[in-house]
Amino acid sequence: MTHESSTLPIGIVTAFCAAWGRLDMDAMAALLHGEIDYHNIPMEPLSGKTAVEAYLRGAAARFDACAWEVHAIAATGDRVLTERVDRMCVEGKWITLPIMGIFEIEDGLIRRWRDYFDLASYRSQWPPVGREGDER
Amino acid sequence: MTHESSTLPIGIVTAFCAAWGRLDMDAMAALLHGEIDYHNIPMEPLSGKTAVEAYLRGAAARFDACAWEVHAIAATGDRVLTERVDRMCVEGKWITLPIMGIFEIEDGLIRRWRDYFDLASYRSQWPPVGREGDER
Repeated sequence: MTHESSTLPIGIVTAFCAAWGRLDMDAMAALLHGEIDYHNIPMEPLSGKTAVEAYLRGAAARFDACAWEVHAIAATGDRVLTERVDRMCVEGKWITLPIMGIFEIEDGLIRRWRDYFDLASYRSQWPPVGREGDER
Repeated sequence: MTHESSTLPIGIVTAFCAAWGRLDMDAMAALLHGEIDYHNIPMEPLSGKTAVEAYLRGAAARFDACAWEVHAIAATGDRVLTERVDRMCVEGKWITLPIMGIFEIEDGLIRRWRDYFDLASYRSQWPPVGREGDER
């Protein structure tokens, strides 16, 4: 891997995380590949931009505010690995999710995305109504 | 980040994963920093080589065999991010754990290590006796 080969993929993932921080779902969706495979590892995978975008917009609709803190980011070729703390404000309460994720870039877009986290820790922070944990 | 700066940290983490694959706990322990902070994110953190080594040797004692498949590995400075599938054979049954982890290298040793995974998915695969999930 050279520094040059990793700059673009890291930049795409950084822009994606920043879009979540603004809850700018148009900017977020513009970075999804048409054939994206998205897998929150404890949950069922989703395929295709239509399904993934609908799911993510549904998740974001629950958030009053959002911030994805990228604590570490590194690339190997077109794959970008991140350590993050994702924060989501739901009904006035901040939910904190320590998480790692990997993004695979194709044609300048996110073709594959897998996030790893503890689902029970996430669900337990949700307000009692809608504590399904499948909103993200 | 240059390629040169990342080679050593990646090599250390690769050696650490390979030691688990051989269940070579002496080789594994030789890569732990004296002041290591180790955190399986859904669980309580551990600090110091004595405590971490004892914990890891206790975990390994339950495994008939082990294999850590490193699917992606990338470094930024002294931090190494991995996507893995850790496989552990317990009482003749293979447990499969999709996982991401970050390792921070100091003085050629693992100073910090955080793994991210779904604890319930892991625990549910354990044999009924000893299904505590705190064996790793």
